[in-house]
Amino acid sequence: MAQLRLALAQVNPVLGDLAGNARMIRDRVAEAAAAGAHLVAFPEMVLTAYPVEDLALRESFVEASRRALVRLAADLATDGYADLPVVVGYLDRADENALDGDPGRTLPQNCAAVIHGGRVVGRYAKHHLPNYGVFDEYRIFAPGESLTVVRIRGVDVAIAICEDLWQEGGPVAQTRDAGAELLLVINGSPYEREKDDTRLELVRRRAAQAGCTLAYLNMVGGQDELVFDGDSMVVGTDGVVLARGPQFVESLVVVDLQMTPSTVDDAALPEGVVHVVVSSEPADRYAPVDPPMYPRLDPVEEVWRAVGLGLRDYVRKNGFRKVLLGVSGGIDSTVVATIAADVLGGENVVAISNPSKYSSDGSKDDAAELAKNLGLDYRVVPIQPMVDPFLASLGLTGVAEENLQARVRGVIWMGISNQEGPLVLANSNKSEVSVGYSTIYGDSVGGFAPIKDVPKTLVWELASWRNRYAEARGEPPPIPEATITKPPSAELRPGQTDQDSLPPYEILDAILAGYVGVAHGRERLIADGFDPATVDRVIQLVDRAEWKRRQFAPGPKISPLAFGKDRRLPITSRWREEGEDRS
Amino acid sequence: MAQLRLALAQVNPVLGDLAGNARMIRDRVAEAAAAGAHLVAFPEMVLTAYPVEDLALRESFVEASRRALVRLAADLATDGYADLPVVVGYLDRADENALDGDPGRTLPQNCAAVIHGGRVVGRYAKHHLPNYGVFDEYRIFAPGESLTVVRIRGVDVAIAICEDLWQEGGPVAQTRDAGAELLLVINGSPYEREKDDTRLELVRRRAAQAGCTLAYLNMVGGQDELVFDGDSMVVGTDGVVLARGPQFVESLVVVDLQMTPSTVDDAALPEGVVHVVVSSEPADRYAPVDPPMYPRLDPVEEVWRAVGLGLRDYVRKNGFRKVLLGVSGGIDSTVVATIAADVLGGENVVAISNPSKYSSDGSKDDAAELAKNLGLDYRVVPIQPMVDPFLASLGLTGVAEENLQARVRGVIWMGISNQEGPLVLANSNKSEVSVGYSTIYGDSVGGFAPIKDVPKTLVWELASWRNRYAEARGEPPPIPEATITKPPSAELRPGQTDQDSLPPYEILDAILAGYVGVAHGRERLIADGFDPATVDRVIQLVDRAEWKRRQFAPGPKISPLAFGKDRRLPITSRWREEGEDRS
Repeated sequence: MAQLRLALAQVNPVLGDLAGNARMIRDRVAEAAAAGAHLVAFPEMVLTAYPVEDLALRESFVEASRRALVRLAADLATDGYADLPVVVGYLDRADENALDGDPGRTLPQNCAAVIHGGRVVGRYAKHHLPNYGVFDEYRIFAPGESLTVVRIRGVDVAIAICEDLWQEGGPVAQTRDAGAELLLVINGSPYEREKDDTRLELVRRRAAQAGCTLAYLNMVGGQDELVFDGDSMVVGTDGVVLARGPQFVESLVVVDLQMTPSTVDDAALPEGVVHVVVSSEPADRYAPVDPPMYPRLDPVEEVWRAVGLGLRDYVRKNGFRKVLLGVSGGIDSTVVATIAADVLGGENVVAISNPSKYSSDGSKDDAAELAKNLGLDYRVVPIQPMVDPFLASLGLTGVAEENLQARVRGVIWMGISNQEGPLVLANSNKSEVSVGYSTIYGDSVGGFAPIKDVPKTLVWELASWRNRYAEARGEPPPIPEATITKPPSAELRPGQTDQDSLPPYEILDAILAGYVGVAHGRERLIADGFDPATVDRVIQLVDRAEWKRRQFAPGPKISPLAFGKDRRLPITSRWREEGEDRS
Repeated sequence: MAQLRLALAQVNPVLGDLAGNARMIRDRVAEAAAAGAHLVAFPEMVLTAYPVEDLALRESFVEASRRALVRLAADLATDGYADLPVVVGYLDRADENALDGDPGRTLPQNCAAVIHGGRVVGRYAKHHLPNYGVFDEYRIFAPGESLTVVRIRGVDVAIAICEDLWQEGGPVAQTRDAGAELLLVINGSPYEREKDDTRLELVRRRAAQAGCTLAYLNMVGGQDELVFDGDSMVVGTDGVVLARGPQFVESLVVVDLQMTPSTVDDAALPEGVVHVVVSSEPADRYAPVDPPMYPRLDPVEEVWRAVGLGLRDYVRKNGFRKVLLGVSGGIDSTVVATIAADVLGGENVVAISNPSKYSSDGSKDDAAELAKNLGLDYRVVPIQPMVDPFLASLGLTGVAEENLQARVRGVIWMGISNQEGPLVLANSNKSEVSVGYSTIYGDSVGGFAPIKDVPKTLVWELASWRNRYAEARGEPPPIPEATITKPPSAELRPGQTDQDSLPPYEILDAILAGYVGVAHGRERLIADGFDPATVDRVIQLVDRAEWKRRQFAPGPKISPLAFGKDRRLPITSRWREEGEDRS
């Protein structure tokens, strides 16, 4: 038997902060060394953070990543960890053998380095490049071809990166052929609802296919539209979960593995496998530690944590300390304010109430109560004095007057933001963003839109979950009950409710889940039992709102198909399913 | 000798308008038949228009494209053109042999159909899928593998699509091996400055490599960020240009080719070539027509036409008739208003002058003069009455007060737009968009940004060109001379000029051409002779404005690297070249 103490560093790097990320890696290596680890691994492209998008096409950035890696290797030795092998994701030039689909351009590679003895002793380049959903990796990377296997304490460890795991061929099959005892996969895999189950099943299947233990390490943190949720895990060949890290928080997952020492010699390795021997001597026998085994979060709590992490990191990584948002007493602004207060502290949330002559007393009371419950920096700025001169000068009526109220609010928020510095948040939910139920340059202003990917029906679930969560901890529920129970309204004209213009949200969200979520067409939606006229109306609203979405702030992706990089549609388009056969 | 009269239909389809595009194709086939053509060709994906982006991933859209093609074939026969072969680009399901890089998804193909006798008799799928710049074709298409060669009047015509021409292997080499006499390449190739020269050289090189005449057919028209510029051409094996179509306008380019009749029989064809015989009998001898041979436009006029076409088509294809913009008497709004008046008519341009207490008399006079010269729908709405209540309520000062003025203007424009219906245009140029020199939700509001990809120095050239153009035609120059000669200013505080905050535009634009245009890093820019402090300042401004650009309206791409789909960078990024080694 050979033992291996593996430390998976489920960390939160900052995009482009090479020096800061290197410091963080050194701190975690020290922690892993103190825990007696034989091997420490960091996530995909941890040194640059991920995804770097077209920064990969800047030669100066690629070279900076390479220099940072070399310096990190030297610094780790200086720190006293020359003997501890460390696997670090980074951005590198393509090696000479890299495939490059695009003549005339040299694309870099998404790599993992094995650091040992103050030097980079091994290098692996990601084979399978995802180019769907939010990913554009054919655009920016050249694929690798060879597999790297590192012998540590007599155990052969194969390395792969993220998408390599989702594809059957390539590194998984090569790992089996190479006879490795452990497949270490480093990831930058963004959160989606229920993806943890998918991942576990996948990891089990691949462990069986690779014929060895599989360690899955994922990043944590928010990066623009993406939230990396951690949830690292180690699974045996037989599918048994040996360790599982927490969701949404940083952690050093330490797990002891019992392996058969490798007997493969280099001459027996299949072509395309690079074998690096770090240490052949098995570790002295020791008593294994209890591995972490975090349970899954409640499915609604999971969304709350994802949105909170995405928001917190957007704020923090962009150098803000405070946020500002309009609070109306409605469910959307209430949930956004509560999430913001949870992750930033209520005192760092500037909440502006902008009552108009159409605002009900109930709404104003609910907003004030929420602000008190959360300790927000609450201010009331009535809008009528600013609205009136526009009306006097321009004579706006109807929808133009409704939009004017929303835009005056936007000007107030941006004015205070420019004066005092907080980041403005947009409160629109996914149902509204889908059908364009917002005023561009009005309630949609803001640099970040926390619940942009959360359908209205789920916004209500989030609010109820948050109150239950408080109650379970013996705290007063923060969200006023009336906010959850009253009919939703933009309060831009007397007696207005959302359902004057939109189907009931349960129906709207179900149609959107089909039309937007999985690209079902009109026929399929009608076959699924939705009313044809409602389907036509929703499709038309969604199609016509594309131009507004293009100018919308980013927000954290929580669904398999979020607006933003995930869904790329022309603005100019006369394609309307319902009209096709009538022309 | 075999003769072939080829008609290249350089047309302007509308995205998603399958019925409308089919009608347009039928009209052009009738025109080509009347001109005695033996073969009519249409651009890449003419039936759906191009690029369809993620619409390709909607099964209902793919099936609609297939049905529209079958109906078009039948309709052409009904119209009396059963005997005239027609090549039409469209979107199709993948054939059974299609490669598909993405297990679990079935991607469609970017295809060309050969229509004859009321049926689709041949089909070719694009081999090389561009996945750089504005293109995402690995995301949405499966590549084809076989070459389709059609025998028409005894002449073998090979078909290829766009990117197939830019890559040396594949269809070009297969065309030579198949012994075809003509390589017909249908394109959706977007305009960039000086790309026409690149294309001609490429076409010459590929004609020599394919060992046959090469017909290059390109689309015309605007589609969101892209402008297709036509410029179709036919080049002999020896590189001689046999015909060249106009730039930026629709045209049926008819050219007579003298060919050797093909003697290749199917048994002799290399593997991977599908041979379709439409007609083996050469045409009776006839006198050839003179082919069109349009000269290239002046390089500055070319930009004017590109921006005008992009604007006109965005307006028209999205169902607008009028546009609205703020006019300040400055160079940017003046050039946008003049281009808009050129393509839409002055009476369809609502020009709002929004003087403040900081507006100079000269600016107001210049705006009024421009409006008179162009016959604009000119209105003056002073902003002070709307600005004052915000100041009274919020006490904004400094930059917050400057931005407030810009935002009040934006609210006025959007209010009139909501009330009356015109599309609002944003006037920002590329220099401003690069460094973030605009107020978000203020002067940057608008659904389309015509000069977003035009650097400030080129904006001045455009204005001068337009006045010279008028003079050359004996018309009064539309643009007031003072607008061109005065120092640029946002007029948001007393005596302000752009150069208070920015380097001189000649220097700024040169640095941006390096940093943004070709991704040169700090070191390279300094080696090129730019002042290090200025380089650092510009880099910092560009990097920090990413969030504003993400919310900016689309505008026509005229450079090799435009903001938008062409340049995808993280908002959250601490990468700063100048800071790298100081940490």
